[in-house]
Amino acid sequence: MVETMSWDGNCLELLDQQKLPREVVTVRCTDYRSVADAIKTMKVRGAPAIGAAAAFGMVLGAKRFSGPKEEFTTHMRQVARALKETRPTAVNLFWAVERMERVLTEVKEQSLPNIIDRLEKEAVEIFEEDRRLNKSIGRYGKEVVPQNATILTHCNAGSLATAGYGTALGVIRAAHEEGKNISVFADETRPLLQGARLTAWELMEDGIPVTLITDNMAGYVMKLGKIDLVIVGADRIAANGDVANKIGTYSLAVLAKEHNIPFYVAAPYSTIDLSLATGEEIVIEEREHNEVRTIGDTVIAPPGVPVFNPAFDVTPNQLITAIITDRGIVKPPYDKGLKTMMEGGE
Amino acid sequence: MVETMSWDGNCLELLDQQKLPREVVTVRCTDYRSVADAIKTMKVRGAPAIGAAAAFGMVLGAKRFSGPKEEFTTHMRQVARALKETRPTAVNLFWAVERMERVLTEVKEQSLPNIIDRLEKEAVEIFEEDRRLNKSIGRYGKEVVPQNATILTHCNAGSLATAGYGTALGVIRAAHEEGKNISVFADETRPLLQGARLTAWELMEDGIPVTLITDNMAGYVMKLGKIDLVIVGADRIAANGDVANKIGTYSLAVLAKEHNIPFYVAAPYSTIDLSLATGEEIVIEEREHNEVRTIGDTVIAPPGVPVFNPAFDVTPNQLITAIITDRGIVKPPYDKGLKTMMEGGE
Repeated sequence: MVETMSWDGNCLELLDQQKLPREVVTVRCTDYRSVADAIKTMKVRGAPAIGAAAAFGMVLGAKRFSGPKEEFTTHMRQVARALKETRPTAVNLFWAVERMERVLTEVKEQSLPNIIDRLEKEAVEIFEEDRRLNKSIGRYGKEVVPQNATILTHCNAGSLATAGYGTALGVIRAAHEEGKNISVFADETRPLLQGARLTAWELMEDGIPVTLITDNMAGYVMKLGKIDLVIVGADRIAANGDVANKIGTYSLAVLAKEHNIPFYVAAPYSTIDLSLATGEEIVIEEREHNEVRTIGDTVIAPPGVPVFNPAFDVTPNQLITAIITDRGIVKPPYDKGLKTMMEGGE
Repeated sequence: MVETMSWDGNCLELLDQQKLPREVVTVRCTDYRSVADAIKTMKVRGAPAIGAAAAFGMVLGAKRFSGPKEEFTTHMRQVARALKETRPTAVNLFWAVERMERVLTEVKEQSLPNIIDRLEKEAVEIFEEDRRLNKSIGRYGKEVVPQNATILTHCNAGSLATAGYGTALGVIRAAHEEGKNISVFADETRPLLQGARLTAWELMEDGIPVTLITDNMAGYVMKLGKIDLVIVGADRIAANGDVANKIGTYSLAVLAKEHNIPFYVAAPYSTIDLSLATGEEIVIEEREHNEVRTIGDTVIAPPGVPVFNPAFDVTPNQLITAIITDRGIVKPPYDKGLKTMMEGGE
């Protein structure tokens, strides 16, 4: 199993996901700034993985603090802000940093070593919890996967996007482990090709049959009758069930509807943001234009051509068959279902 | 204006479209085999351009013939077969080669120099006719383009795909020349990136505002209300109006329907194949897997990952608002409209 990140008490080691699968290189982060940079440049990516990495970033921010105790709170506020400013769409980032900030508030009267110890325990718990959540998503989700199903997925919602096991790929893994004889079509997912580079690689490592296609083939593959269901991850889910996920997810959901193919979203409770009534309120990150103009070292477009590069889109709840969470499968109407599920606690 | 190909009486010079826009390199074809190879490897591509190149390939096949006259017919049959075997989907290839074969039959009793002369005249006429047809498509098509419209296009149906001016881009050029203040979104069109490399380049050269997006962004761009109409080219149009075109066209048509955006196909009469009742009968070319696994020199997927690489898809006629031809705009019901139009003659 691929290790997205590991923590040794002083350093967060991240698998550099921009270099996979050609190079398996790790990035060592020993301060919060290098964690923030790794999130921003997508060396670590995937909503749950970003959340866990940011939690460790908070720990590193505390551990490297060398000023007087009375400046610690201000310092940690800066650390939290720097981490939150890296990427706007995935809510797990804010969820994890705010969870760490709540711990800070709880223990603020204690000694610095105690505070740091408590922060580290919380970050490790966020990380380990995410693995448990993914296993649970897989356990619930495999029930929607028929025997011999062929599943289309987009981007990478796998081990690499999480603390391990994966959300969408967690469901796929659980179905595979149960001997359901499944196979997968993976969209390559331009511009950063997480499907081609990461999902195809993860599934091959696990011995799950995978076929790689370009994003624009998905509709035709559905029309040919090759797809039984679609499963994707999520970066943020609004109270009404609208889902922000990697750009292209919305198109897939429209195409799935046209072909009467069930469309599932798999995500832990930490991705659900009841503070937003609808997906309209989700901030969509726009990334830099050379991500579209180039691929690796290859320039693929005229220099200076204007580009639009939204990193995510929002899929309206009407297009989603069900949302598979660690606490069970939520079906429409989502406003009611998500609220009940979130109030239920872990 | 970009010159896709030029003919000097002894050599067909092709702009190498695999190298654009990074390198502007021409390929000199002095025999029919090099023309066949250029078509197969997509140094020349686009249904009308393939047709014209194949016609010149027939001329080169005749010019380089050095055997006795009684073997000429057999030789030319081989030449025609080699050219037809390059790519299966675009009907213009077969249309052009068969038009050359009809000339051969007509003049078969004449002297070899006379036959060759007649073939050369026909190839030049196919080439020049295509330019006229494109201008005519533009003249009819610009009427469907509203003032200040933003148009989405896919792949390259421009100068480079034809003898000049273009089909879908011909409509866009004609609307631009009329001062309609239009702008264009161009899908990059994986795997071979004709949108990023060719369409973006052509439009920038002509000073038509263009924004490049990845294929998976098209649905979201439509949802944002940025697209007024879609115009694409075609590789083959069946009698019922089903359209084979570059992979991804079908998805765009479904997405356009979902957003109530008109979806137009622009093509000359030579793309219409009344011998096929529906698009189900169109052979869809599958190309080699490394087109998906690599981009330029960059490997983007695990070595040996299974790939599905259909070069085209079929868009059912119900999703098409109108077909813009050199003889006018054909609206549903297409079976009647296309038949009437084709019987009308040029």
